Amino acid sequence: MRHFEEQLNELRKRLLEMSGLVEAAIYRSVQCLVEGDEKQAHIVFQNEARINQMQIEIDDLATAILALEQPVATDLRFITAATRINSELERMGDLAVNTAERALSLLRKSAPKPLIDVAHLAHLVESMVRKALDAFVRKDAELARTVLTSDDAVDELRDAIYTELIETMQNDASLVESSVEYLFIARNLERIADHATNIAEDVLFLVEGVDVRHHAEVRRAG
Amino acid sequence: MRHFEEQLNELRKRLLEMSGLVEAAIYRSVQCLVEGDEKQAHIVFQNEARINQMQIEIDDLATAILALEQPVATDLRFITAATRINSELERMGDLAVNTAERALSLLRKSAPKPLIDVAHLAHLVESMVRKALDAFVRKDAELARTVLTSDDAVDELRDAIYTELIETMQNDASLVESSVEYLFIARNLERIADHATNIAEDVLFLVEGVDVRHHAEVRRAG
Repeated sequence: MRHFEEQLNELRKRLLEMSGLVEAAIYRSVQCLVEGDEKQAHIVFQNEARINQMQIEIDDLATAILALEQPVATDLRFITAATRINSELERMGDLAVNTAERALSLLRKSAPKPLIDVAHLAHLVESMVRKALDAFVRKDAELARTVLTSDDAVDELRDAIYTELIETMQNDASLVESSVEYLFIARNLERIADHATNIAEDVLFLVEGVDVRHHAEVRRAG
Repeated sequence: MRHFEEQLNELRKRLLEMSGLVEAAIYRSVQCLVEGDEKQAHIVFQNEARINQMQIEIDDLATAILALEQPVATDLRFITAATRINSELERMGDLAVNTAERALSLLRKSAPKPLIDVAHLAHLVESMVRKALDAFVRKDAELARTVLTSDDAVDELRDAIYTELIETMQNDASLVESSVEYLFIARNLERIADHATNIAEDVLFLVEGVDVRHHAEVRRAG
Protein backbone atom coordinates (compact mmCIF):
# COMPACT_ATOMS: atom_id res chain seq x y z
CA MET A 1 0.00 0.00 0.00
CA ARG A 2 2.82 2.36 0.87
CA HIS A 3 4.41 1.44 -2.44
CA PHE A 4 1.15 2.23 -4.25
CA GLU A 5 0.88 5.68 -2.64
CA GLU A 6 4.46 6.38 -3.61
CA GLN A 7 3.71 5.48 -7.20
CA LEU A 8 0.69 7.76 -7.32
CA ASN A 9 2.78 10.57 -5.85
CA GLU A 10 5.46 9.93 -8.45
CA LEU A 11 2.81 10.13 -11.19
CA ARG A 12 1.45 13.37 -9.73
CA LYS A 13 4.96 14.82 -9.41
CA ARG A 14 5.91 14.04 -12.99
CA LEU A 15 2.66 15.40 -14.36
CA LEU A 16 3.29 18.65 -12.46
CA GLU A 17 6.80 18.80 -13.86
CA MET A 18 5.39 18.27 -17.37
CA SER A 19 2.77 20.97 -16.71
CA GLY A 20 5.49 23.38 -15.68
CA LEU A 21 7.49 22.72 -18.84
CA VAL A 22 4.46 23.13 -21.11
CA GLU A 23 3.25 26.26 -19.35
CA ALA A 24 6.75 27.74 -19.73
CA ALA A 25 6.82 26.78 -23.42
CA ILE A 26 3.53 28.60 -24.02
CA TYR A 27 4.74 31.64 -22.07
CA ARG A 28 8.02 31.74 -24.01
CA SER A 29 6.35 31.36 -27.42
CA VAL A 30 4.05 34.27 -26.53
CA GLN A 31 7.05 36.32 -25.37
CA CYS A 32 8.71 35.74 -28.73
CA LEU A 33 5.48 36.71 -30.49
CA VAL A 34 4.56 39.77 -28.44
CA GLU A 35 7.99 41.07 -27.41
CA GLY A 36 10.02 39.81 -30.36
CA ASP A 37 12.34 37.96 -27.99
CA GLU A 38 14.06 35.35 -30.21
CA LYS A 39 15.93 33.71 -27.34
CA GLN A 40 12.65 32.52 -25.84
CA ALA A 41 11.77 30.67 -29.05
CA HIS A 42 15.07 28.81 -28.99
CA ILE A 43 14.51 27.70 -25.41
CA VAL A 44 11.11 26.34 -26.51
CA PHE A 45 12.84 24.29 -29.23
CA GLN A 46 15.45 23.00 -26.75
CA ASN A 47 12.77 21.77 -24.35
CA GLU A 48 10.62 20.04 -26.96
CA ALA A 49 12.40 16.66 -26.76
CA ARG A 50 12.18 16.67 -22.97
CA ILE A 51 8.41 17.24 -23.08
CA ASN A 52 7.98 14.43 -25.61
CA GLN A 53 10.12 12.08 -23.55
CA MET A 54 8.22 12.98 -20.43
CA GLN A 55 4.88 12.21 -22.07
CA ILE A 56 6.03 8.67 -22.83
CA GLU A 57 7.43 8.18 -19.32
CA ILE A 58 4.22 9.39 -17.68
CA ASP A 59 2.14 7.13 -19.92
CA ASP A 60 4.38 4.18 -19.12
CA LEU A 61 4.20 4.91 -15.40
CA ALA A 62 0.38 5.15 -15.53
CA THR A 63 0.16 1.85 -17.42
CA ALA A 64 2.54 0.17 -14.98
CA ILE A 65 0.47 1.34 -12.00
CA LEU A 66 -2.71 0.09 -13.68
CA ALA A 67 -1.13 -3.29 -14.38
CA LEU A 68 0.64 -3.88 -11.09
CA GLU A 69 -1.57 -2.20 -8.55
CA GLN A 70 -5.01 -2.65 -10.13
CA PRO A 71 -6.40 0.50 -8.53
CA VAL A 72 -10.13 1.16 -8.14
CA ALA A 73 -12.52 4.09 -7.63
CA THR A 74 -10.87 7.47 -6.99
CA ASP A 75 -7.36 6.22 -7.69
CA LEU A 76 -8.42 4.72 -11.00
CA ARG A 77 -10.14 7.97 -11.91
CA PHE A 78 -7.01 9.92 -11.05
CA ILE A 79 -4.84 7.69 -13.22
CA THR A 80 -7.14 7.84 -16.27
CA ALA A 81 -7.45 11.64 -15.86
CA ALA A 82 -3.66 11.88 -15.56
CA THR A 83 -3.26 9.97 -18.83
CA ARG A 84 -5.66 12.29 -20.62
CA ILE A 85 -4.08 15.43 -19.16
CA ASN A 86 -0.67 14.10 -20.16
CA SER A 87 -1.82 13.82 -23.75
CA GLU A 88 -3.38 17.32 -23.70
CA LEU A 89 -0.12 18.74 -22.35
CA GLU A 90 1.96 17.14 -25.05
CA ARG A 91 -0.31 18.60 -27.74
CA MET A 92 -0.10 22.03 -26.10
CA GLY A 93 3.67 21.71 -26.16
CA ASP A 94 3.56 20.99 -29.90
CA LEU A 95 1.40 24.06 -30.46
CA ALA A 96 3.82 26.20 -28.45
CA VAL A 97 6.68 24.97 -30.66
CA ASN A 98 4.71 25.78 -33.81
CA THR A 99 3.81 29.21 -32.43
CA ALA A 100 7.45 29.93 -31.60
CA GLU A 101 8.50 28.90 -35.12
CA ARG A 102 5.91 31.21 -36.68
CA ALA A 103 6.77 34.05 -34.29
CA LEU A 104 10.44 33.75 -35.33
CA SER A 105 9.45 33.69 -38.99
CA LEU A 106 7.37 36.86 -38.45
CA LEU A 107 10.44 38.67 -37.11
CA ARG A 108 12.06 38.08 -40.52
CA LYS A 109 9.11 39.29 -42.63
CA SER A 110 7.51 42.64 -43.31
CA ALA A 111 4.71 42.33 -40.81
CA PRO A 112 1.39 44.12 -40.42
CA LYS A 113 1.06 46.59 -37.58
CA PRO A 114 1.18 44.81 -34.24
CA LEU A 115 -2.13 43.04 -33.76
CA ILE A 116 -3.37 44.11 -30.36
CA ASP A 117 -6.01 41.38 -30.38
CA VAL A 118 -3.40 38.66 -30.87
CA ALA A 119 -1.60 39.84 -27.73
CA HIS A 120 -4.94 39.88 -25.89
CA LEU A 121 -5.75 36.39 -27.11
CA ALA A 122 -2.29 35.13 -26.13
CA HIS A 123 -2.62 36.48 -22.60
CA LEU A 124 -6.16 35.17 -22.21
CA VAL A 125 -5.05 31.72 -23.34
CA GLU A 126 -2.06 31.79 -20.99
CA SER A 127 -4.34 32.57 -18.08
CA MET A 128 -6.69 29.71 -19.06
CA VAL A 129 -3.76 27.30 -19.13
CA ARG A 130 -2.53 28.49 -15.76
CA LYS A 131 -6.00 28.19 -14.20
CA ALA A 132 -6.60 24.72 -15.65
CA LEU A 133 -3.31 23.44 -14.27
CA ASP A 134 -3.82 25.12 -10.90
CA ALA A 135 -7.32 23.62 -10.76
CA PHE A 136 -5.76 20.20 -11.32
CA VAL A 137 -3.11 20.69 -8.62
CA ARG A 138 -5.61 22.01 -6.08
CA LYS A 139 -8.52 19.78 -7.20
CA ASP A 140 -10.49 23.01 -7.47
CA ALA A 141 -13.74 22.49 -9.42
CA GLU A 142 -14.70 26.15 -9.09
CA LEU A 143 -11.49 27.29 -10.75
CA ALA A 144 -11.89 24.62 -13.44
CA ARG A 145 -15.32 26.04 -14.28
CA THR A 146 -13.87 29.52 -14.84
CA VAL A 147 -11.73 28.02 -17.61
CA LEU A 148 -14.83 26.63 -19.34
CA THR A 149 -16.54 30.01 -19.34
CA SER A 150 -13.60 31.73 -21.09
CA ASP A 151 -14.49 29.95 -24.33
CA ASP A 152 -16.74 32.73 -25.58
CA ALA A 153 -14.11 35.42 -25.10
CA VAL A 154 -11.63 33.31 -27.07
CA ASP A 155 -14.11 32.92 -29.93
CA GLU A 156 -14.81 36.66 -30.05
CA LEU A 157 -11.14 37.59 -30.14
CA ARG A 158 -10.46 34.98 -32.79
CA ASP A 159 -13.23 36.34 -35.02
CA ALA A 160 -11.93 39.90 -34.64
CA ILE A 161 -8.40 38.77 -35.51
CA TYR A 162 -9.51 36.85 -38.61
CA THR A 163 -11.55 39.80 -39.88
CA GLU A 164 -8.63 42.15 -39.38
CA LEU A 165 -6.14 39.81 -41.07
CA ILE A 166 -8.36 39.21 -44.09
CA GLU A 167 -8.76 42.97 -44.56
CA THR A 168 -5.01 43.42 -44.23
CA MET A 169 -4.35 40.84 -46.95
CA GLN A 170 -7.00 42.32 -49.23
CA ASN A 171 -5.49 45.80 -48.88
CA ASP A 172 -1.77 45.03 -49.07
CA ALA A 173 -0.40 42.03 -50.99
CA SER A 174 3.02 42.53 -49.37
CA LEU A 175 1.51 41.57 -46.02
CA VAL A 176 -0.07 38.29 -47.17
CA GLU A 177 2.74 36.03 -45.99
CA SER A 178 3.02 37.48 -42.51
CA SER A 179 -0.77 37.63 -42.15
CA VAL A 180 -0.92 33.90 -42.89
CA GLU A 181 1.56 33.32 -40.05
CA TYR A 182 -0.68 35.35 -37.77
CA LEU A 183 -3.74 33.37 -38.88
CA PHE A 184 -2.08 30.13 -37.88
CA ILE A 185 -0.76 31.61 -34.64
CA ALA A 186 -4.28 32.69 -33.70
CA ARG A 187 -5.49 29.19 -34.57
CA ASN A 188 -2.73 27.66 -32.41
CA LEU A 189 -3.73 29.84 -29.48
CA GLU A 190 -7.37 28.91 -29.91
CA ARG A 191 -6.40 25.23 -29.89
CA ILE A 192 -4.25 25.67 -26.77
CA ALA A 193 -7.37 27.18 -25.17
CA ASP A 194 -9.33 24.08 -26.27
CA HIS A 195 -6.77 21.81 -24.61
CA ALA A 196 -6.91 23.92 -21.43
CA THR A 197 -10.69 23.46 -21.55
CA ASN A 198 -10.24 19.70 -21.90
CA ILE A 199 -7.97 19.67 -18.85
CA ALA A 200 -10.54 21.68 -16.89
CA GLU A 201 -13.14 19.07 -17.90
CA ASP A 202 -10.82 16.31 -16.69
CA VAL A 203 -10.48 18.14 -13.37
CA LEU A 204 -14.28 18.25 -13.02
CA PHE A 205 -14.40 14.54 -13.85
CA LEU A 206 -11.75 13.89 -11.24
CA VAL A 207 -13.24 16.03 -8.48
CA GLU A 208 -16.95 15.59 -9.08
CA GLY A 209 -17.09 12.40 -11.12
CA VAL A 210 -19.13 14.22 -13.77
CA ASP A 211 -18.18 13.81 -17.40
CA VAL A 212 -18.82 17.22 -18.98
CA ARG A 213 -17.19 16.58 -22.33
CA HIS A 214 -19.34 17.67 -25.25
CA HIS A 215 -22.03 19.03 -22.92
CA ALA A 216 -21.78 22.77 -23.24
CA GLU A 217 -25.14 23.28 -21.56
CA VAL A 218 -24.05 21.37 -18.44
CA ARG A 219 -20.77 23.24 -18.33
CA ARG A 220 -22.39 26.67 -18.59
CA ALA A 221 -25.05 25.83 -16.03
CA GLY A 222 -22.42 24.92 -13.45
CA MET B 1 -13.55 -14.96 -17.72
CA ARG B 2 -16.26 -15.36 -20.32
CA HIS B 3 -17.70 -12.09 -19.10
CA PHE B 4 -14.30 -10.41 -19.47
CA GLU B 5 -13.91 -11.64 -23.07
CA GLU B 6 -17.37 -10.36 -23.85
CA GLN B 7 -16.48 -6.95 -22.50
CA LEU B 8 -13.31 -6.79 -24.58
CA ASN B 9 -15.31 -7.78 -27.65
CA GLU B 10 -17.85 -5.11 -26.87
CA LEU B 11 -15.05 -2.53 -26.59
CA ARG B 12 -13.57 -3.70 -29.90
CA LYS B 13 -16.98 -3.63 -31.56
CA ARG B 14 -17.77 -0.10 -30.43
CA LEU B 15 -14.37 1.19 -31.43
CA LEU B 16 -14.90 -0.27 -34.91
CA GLU B 17 -18.30 1.36 -35.11
CA MET B 18 -16.73 4.68 -34.10
CA SER B 19 -13.96 4.17 -36.70
CA GLY B 20 -16.59 3.59 -39.36
CA LEU B 21 -18.44 6.78 -38.46
CA VAL B 22 -15.27 8.88 -38.43
CA GLU B 23 -13.96 7.40 -41.66
CA ALA B 24 -17.33 8.19 -43.29
CA ALA B 25 -17.24 11.75 -41.90
CA ILE B 26 -13.81 12.33 -43.44
CA TYR B 27 -14.93 10.81 -46.74
CA ARG B 28 -18.08 12.97 -46.82
CA SER B 29 -16.25 16.19 -45.96
CA VAL B 30 -13.82 15.48 -48.80
CA GLN B 31 -16.74 14.77 -51.14
CA CYS B 32 -18.24 18.14 -50.28
CA LEU B 33 -14.87 19.79 -50.85
CA VAL B 34 -13.86 18.04 -54.06
CA GLU B 35 -17.27 17.38 -55.67
CA GLY B 36 -19.19 20.31 -54.19
CA ASP B 37 -21.75 17.90 -52.77
CA GLU B 38 -23.50 19.92 -50.02
CA LYS B 39 -25.65 17.03 -48.82
CA GLN B 40 -22.54 15.18 -47.64
CA ALA B 41 -21.58 18.10 -45.38
CA HIS B 42 -25.00 18.05 -43.74
CA ILE B 43 -24.71 14.33 -43.01
CA VAL B 44 -21.37 15.04 -41.34
CA PHE B 45 -23.05 17.62 -39.09
CA GLN B 46 -25.88 15.19 -38.26
CA ASN B 47 -23.43 12.49 -37.16
CA GLU B 48 -21.25 14.74 -35.02
CA ALA B 49 -23.26 14.28 -31.81
CA ARG B 50 -23.25 10.52 -32.24
CA ILE B 51 -19.46 10.43 -32.57
CA ASN B 52 -19.06 12.59 -29.46
CA GLN B 53 -21.48 10.43 -27.50
CA MET B 54 -19.71 7.31 -28.65
CA GLN B 55 -16.33 8.63 -27.49
CA ILE B 56 -17.67 9.06 -23.97
CA GLU B 57 -19.29 5.61 -23.97
CA ILE B 58 -16.12 3.92 -25.17
CA ASP B 59 -14.05 5.73 -22.56
CA ASP B 60 -16.53 4.75 -19.85
CA LEU B 61 -16.52 1.16 -21.00
CA ALA B 62 -12.70 1.05 -21.00
CA THR B 63 -12.58 2.53 -17.51
CA ALA B 64 -15.19 0.07 -16.27
CA ILE B 65 -13.23 -2.88 -17.66
CA LEU B 66 -10.05 -1.57 -16.03
CA ALA B 67 -11.80 -1.15 -12.70
CA LEU B 68 -13.81 -4.37 -12.60
CA GLU B 69 -11.61 -6.83 -14.43
CA GLN B 70 -8.14 -5.55 -13.62
CA PRO B 71 -6.64 -6.87 -16.83
CA VAL B 72 -2.92 -7.41 -17.31
CA ALA B 73 -0.38 -7.76 -20.13
CA THR B 74 -1.85 -7.90 -23.64
CA ASP B 75 -5.38 -7.10 -22.54
CA LEU B 76 -4.23 -4.07 -20.61
CA ARG B 77 -2.25 -2.91 -23.62
CA PHE B 78 -5.30 -3.34 -25.83
CA ILE B 79 -7.45 -1.29 -23.49
CA THR B 80 -4.98 1.58 -23.17
CA ALA B 81 -4.46 1.60 -26.96
CA ALA B 82 -8.23 1.57 -27.45
CA THR B 83 -8.56 4.62 -25.19
CA ARG B 84 -5.92 6.51 -27.14
CA ILE B 85 -7.38 5.52 -30.52
CA ASN B 86 -10.81 6.58 -29.28
CA SER B 87 -9.47 10.04 -28.52
CA GLU B 88 -7.70 10.28 -31.91
CA LEU B 89 -10.92 9.31 -33.67
CA GLU B 90 -12.93 11.95 -31.86
CA ARG B 91 -10.42 14.62 -32.87
CA MET B 92 -10.50 13.41 -36.48
CA GLY B 93 -14.27 13.67 -36.37
CA ASP B 94 -13.99 17.30 -35.22
CA LEU B 95 -11.61 18.06 -38.07
CA ALA B 96 -14.00 16.46 -40.57
CA VAL B 97 -16.79 18.71 -39.26
CA ASN B 98 -14.60 21.79 -39.58
CA THR B 99 -13.56 20.75 -43.10
CA ALA B 100 -17.19 20.24 -44.11
CA GLU B 101 -18.09 23.70 -42.74
CA ARG B 102 -15.29 25.33 -44.68
CA ALA B 103 -16.09 23.34 -47.83
CA LEU B 104 -19.70 24.58 -47.63
CA SER B 105 -18.51 28.12 -47.10
CA LEU B 106 -16.25 27.82 -50.17
CA LEU B 107 -19.29 26.89 -52.29
CA ARG B 108 -20.74 30.32 -51.42
CA LYS B 109 -17.59 32.35 -52.18
CA SER B 110 -15.74 33.30 -55.33
CA ALA B 111 -13.13 30.60 -55.14
CA PRO B 112 -9.72 30.22 -56.77
CA LYS B 113 -9.41 27.69 -59.55
CA PRO B 114 -9.83 24.16 -58.17
CA LEU B 115 -6.68 23.26 -56.29
CA ILE B 116 -5.59 19.91 -57.68
CA ASP B 117 -3.12 19.45 -54.83
CA VAL B 118 -5.87 19.82 -52.22
CA ALA B 119 -7.78 16.94 -53.84
CA HIS B 120 -4.55 14.90 -53.91
CA LEU B 121 -3.89 15.66 -50.27
CA ALA B 122 -7.48 14.78 -49.35
CA HIS B 123 -7.27 11.41 -51.08
CA LEU B 124 -3.84 10.64 -49.61
CA VAL B 125 -5.10 11.44 -46.13
CA GLU B 126 -8.22 9.32 -46.63
CA SER B 127 -6.07 6.37 -47.62
CA MET B 128 -3.85 6.86 -44.55
CA VAL B 129 -6.92 6.84 -42.32
CA ARG B 130 -8.27 3.70 -43.95
CA LYS B 131 -4.92 1.92 -43.63
CA ALA B 132 -4.46 2.93 -40.00
CA LEU B 133 -7.91 1.63 -39.07
CA ASP B 134 -7.48 -1.56 -41.11
CA ALA B 135 -4.11 -2.09 -39.43
CA PHE B 136 -5.84 -1.82 -36.07
CA VAL B 137 -8.59 -4.28 -37.03
CA ARG B 138 -6.16 -6.80 -38.50
CA LYS B 139 -3.34 -6.15 -35.98
CA ASP B 140 -1.16 -5.62 -39.03
CA ALA B 141 2.15 -3.96 -38.10
CA GLU B 142 3.32 -3.94 -41.72
CA LEU B 143 0.30 -1.96 -42.84
CA ALA B 144 0.67 0.39 -39.85
CA ARG B 145 4.22 1.16 -40.95
CA THR B 146 3.06 2.19 -44.44
CA VAL B 147 0.98 4.92 -42.75
CA LEU B 148 4.06 6.27 -40.98
CA THR B 149 5.99 6.53 -44.23
CA SER B 150 3.28 8.65 -45.90
CA ASP B 151 4.25 11.62 -43.72
CA ASP B 152 6.73 13.03 -46.21
CA ALA B 153 4.24 13.01 -49.08
CA VAL B 154 1.76 14.89 -46.88
CA ASP B 155 4.38 17.53 -46.04
CA GLU B 156 5.32 18.03 -49.69
CA LEU B 157 1.73 18.45 -50.80
CA ARG B 158 1.04 20.84 -47.95
CA ASP B 159 4.03 23.01 -48.88
CA ALA B 160 2.93 23.11 -52.52
CA ILE B 161 -0.61 24.09 -51.49
CA TYR B 162 0.56 26.87 -49.17
CA THR B 163 2.84 28.33 -51.82
CA GLU B 164 0.06 28.31 -54.39
CA LEU B 165 -2.47 29.88 -52.01
CA ILE B 166 -0.13 32.65 -50.93
CA GLU B 167 0.55 33.54 -54.58
CA THR B 168 -3.18 33.50 -55.29
CA MET B 169 -3.84 35.93 -52.44
CA GLN B 170 -0.98 38.20 -53.47
CA ASN B 171 -2.29 38.36 -57.06
CA ASP B 172 -6.02 38.70 -56.47
CA ALA B 173 -7.48 40.34 -53.36
CA SER B 174 -10.93 39.02 -54.25
CA LEU B 175 -9.68 35.47 -53.61
CA VAL B 176 -8.26 36.13 -50.14
CA GLU B 177 -11.27 34.90 -48.18
CA SER B 178 -11.66 31.64 -50.06
CA SER B 179 -7.91 31.04 -50.02
CA VAL B 180 -7.95 31.33 -46.23
CA GLU B 181 -10.62 28.63 -46.12
CA TYR B 182 -8.39 26.45 -48.29
CA LEU B 183 -5.41 27.13 -46.02
CA PHE B 184 -7.33 25.87 -43.03
CA ILE B 185 -8.74 22.91 -44.94
CA ALA B 186 -5.21 21.87 -45.91
CA ARG B 187 -4.18 22.26 -42.28
CA ASN B 188 -7.14 20.12 -41.17
CA LEU B 189 -6.19 17.41 -43.63
CA GLU B 190 -2.59 17.50 -42.43
CA ARG B 191 -3.80 17.11 -38.86
CA ILE B 192 -6.09 14.21 -39.78
CA ALA B 193 -2.98 12.59 -41.26
CA ASP B 194 -1.17 13.21 -37.95
CA HIS B 195 -3.96 11.47 -36.05
CA ALA B 196 -3.87 8.55 -38.50
CA THR B 197 -0.13 8.36 -37.82
CA ASN B 198 -0.80 8.32 -34.08
CA ILE B 199 -3.24 5.44 -34.54
CA ALA B 200 -0.66 3.56 -36.60
CA GLU B 201 1.81 4.10 -33.75
CA ASP B 202 -0.74 2.74 -31.29
CA VAL B 203 -1.15 -0.33 -33.50
CA LEU B 204 2.62 -0.91 -33.44
CA PHE B 205 2.55 -0.51 -29.67
CA LEU B 206 -0.28 -3.00 -29.49
CA VAL B 207 1.19 -5.60 -31.84
CA GLU B 208 4.88 -5.28 -31.11
CA GLY B 209 4.93 -3.65 -27.70
CA VAL B 210 7.22 -0.94 -29.07
CA ASP B 211 6.46 2.68 -28.28
CA VAL B 212 7.40 4.59 -31.44
CA ARG B 213 5.91 7.93 -30.53
CA HIS B 214 8.30 10.82 -31.14
CA HIS B 215 10.89 8.50 -32.63
CA ALA B 216 10.89 9.28 -36.31
CA GLU B 217 14.17 7.48 -36.83
CA VAL B 218 12.84 4.22 -35.36
CA ARG B 219 9.68 4.52 -37.40
CA ARG B 220 11.49 5.08 -40.67
CA ALA B 221 13.95 2.32 -40.01
CA GLY B 222 11.16 -0.21 -39.58
